[in-house]
Amino acid sequence: MALEERRLRALSEALTEDVPSLIVTLPANIRYLLDAPALFDPGFSGPLFVCGAEAWLLVDGRYTAQAEAGGLPANVVEWSESPWKSLRPILDGAAIKRCGFEAAYMTVAQYNQLKEVLDVELTPARGLVEGLRVKKEPSEIDALAKAAKLGDEVFIKVLESIKPGRIEREVAADIDCWLRRAGADGPSFETIVAGGPNSAFPHTRAGERRLRAGDFVKLDFGGVFGGYHADMTRTVVLGSATEEQRELYEHVVEAEARALAGLAPGVTGREADALSRDYFVSIGKGDSFGHNLGHGVGLDVHEQPTLGPKSKTELEAGMVFTVEPGLYIPGFGGVRIEDMVVMCEHGIQVLTKSTKELLVV
Amino acid sequence: MALEERRLRALSEALTEDVPSLIVTLPANIRYLLDAPALFDPGFSGPLFVCGAEAWLLVDGRYTAQAEAGGLPANVVEWSESPWKSLRPILDGAAIKRCGFEAAYMTVAQYNQLKEVLDVELTPARGLVEGLRVKKEPSEIDALAKAAKLGDEVFIKVLESIKPGRIEREVAADIDCWLRRAGADGPSFETIVAGGPNSAFPHTRAGERRLRAGDFVKLDFGGVFGGYHADMTRTVVLGSATEEQRELYEHVVEAEARALAGLAPGVTGREADALSRDYFVSIGKGDSFGHNLGHGVGLDVHEQPTLGPKSKTELEAGMVFTVEPGLYIPGFGGVRIEDMVVMCEHGIQVLTKSTKELLVV
Repeated sequence: MALEERRLRALSEALTEDVPSLIVTLPANIRYLLDAPALFDPGFSGPLFVCGAEAWLLVDGRYTAQAEAGGLPANVVEWSESPWKSLRPILDGAAIKRCGFEAAYMTVAQYNQLKEVLDVELTPARGLVEGLRVKKEPSEIDALAKAAKLGDEVFIKVLESIKPGRIEREVAADIDCWLRRAGADGPSFETIVAGGPNSAFPHTRAGERRLRAGDFVKLDFGGVFGGYHADMTRTVVLGSATEEQRELYEHVVEAEARALAGLAPGVTGREADALSRDYFVSIGKGDSFGHNLGHGVGLDVHEQPTLGPKSKTELEAGMVFTVEPGLYIPGFGGVRIEDMVVMCEHGIQVLTKSTKELLVV
Repeated sequence: MALEERRLRALSEALTEDVPSLIVTLPANIRYLLDAPALFDPGFSGPLFVCGAEAWLLVDGRYTAQAEAGGLPANVVEWSESPWKSLRPILDGAAIKRCGFEAAYMTVAQYNQLKEVLDVELTPARGLVEGLRVKKEPSEIDALAKAAKLGDEVFIKVLESIKPGRIEREVAADIDCWLRRAGADGPSFETIVAGGPNSAFPHTRAGERRLRAGDFVKLDFGGVFGGYHADMTRTVVLGSATEEQRELYEHVVEAEARALAGLAPGVTGREADALSRDYFVSIGKGDSFGHNLGHGVGLDVHEQPTLGPKSKTELEAGMVFTVEPGLYIPGFGGVRIEDMVVMCEHGIQVLTKSTKELLVV
């Protein structure tokens, strides 16, 4: 059985009496079900309608020829006035009376249009496709490993070129170019290069500040490869590191090592997060770690599972996610170390191979 | 009065009895109202709550320090459990009984959460902030002109480097790198480089195909500059052009020239679209132009106004939009020419300056 059919079949098995068919609108979910991770540009959002193991992909005229040439496991229907109006005859033809929709992605305006043009009972559905996507197939892990490797290669080039006087934005442009030239479709997210005090902002844009000797420089980046997203962070020091910097850095290394050592199938997202967080709390720095420990990566850069204080998800073999503890000291600087890991039967395998020793460059 | 206050005030004047206050969730709308087109990374989505000319920006912990340092014309509130729960005391404190939300962007799941935690009547609102954004201020036109200029500069470099044997994806990588190094935050959308038969797909991804002598090559790209999006398309021929190619190309040039000549304040989006479409129909090629003539550009790459057969919008001075007729012949190839223009008091000014003569390179 072809891969794509397996995925549609797996979804059809996850459908219930309440949600016997599903309108899929999240781009990554559509790509996944069609096993076309890289066929369409990121703006393409279908929708896809799935009933049983049969699927209909609704496309606007700009995508018809591609969709038809793509060998997709779905009937391709070109809509003109609105995708929802074109959905009507499909649902009527299959005598569909009840249909789920992705409440987390469908807008209120879309929902109101659906209600207007369809003669079915609409049921909010949650996480049906995401539940399939969370455990990666070997080919997906392979794509994620390749994406991670691009990041490792780029990091080496960054180390050779970063120095005091360079502007954050220039370094970020270098990273984006190297990722692109190495085969990435583009950056997975906006590349972060944050030097000195800016490194204390967990999320900030690469700006016009010139890097200086003594700066922490936080580099958070990754490329999209074959539709799959990489995400890694390393923090380096320019010129020479103070004792205080070394100490902060080693705390983050220790927190990450504890997480990596403690991760195993069956650990919950909350427990995983605590592996690093409890260490930070034990050294009196719990307040300096204001975000989650990690997030799943795949066809989206942020997806299931969540590794955070509120996550009850049990980690399972096949899941791929980030582990990214950080400490942020306003005015002084911040350190984050982020790896991508895949959960295996007896523990994790780290996909990002770049060193985590403190690099003074 | 500061610019940002003007924008909040303009919104407050657009509010009505039905929508006396507004929850803003579209990232571009938030950036616009705060006059912070480039403060946050593209992933930032607030929300922002506006009542009268006062505003509250809700941020998660990763953005707090930046938001507070940004000198924004809004109260910054860090949320932890959910932005909607943190909104409750603000609405209660201001005795808000009725509140609008952006139905075109708010998801059904968000709406259900809002209904659960807020004690207000929620009213769907449409296009309130977009209505302000559609006519650009001089500083915005300046940013769009600069973004367009980056594209022109990059196009010259493309002409110097494109040749048979190069892979579509490599050329796209060049474009992205040059845009980035010239100062763009990144591409406005996924860069299209489509050669030979691929040029007949209006929207396709730059792929692994090697360009060949005799190919049409369609190049559709643009950079984000200071938060503002550029978008242009040029189509060239490699090696030498056939009579048939020249003819197709000249039809598109003619269609664009007719549109540019006929655009004036008061023309509707439908009438604008017809300026090119009627020409294509008159030469028997109406079916080969399957998309709209153009779209607004600004803080989003696709925004108001729409120039298309269904658009009743009247074009007004200050609007900035694309004009992009195209003809697509399956198996043979396609031609699109796209400019960014700004509507002035008596006609349009073209922001993209690259030549539209047929370039055989």
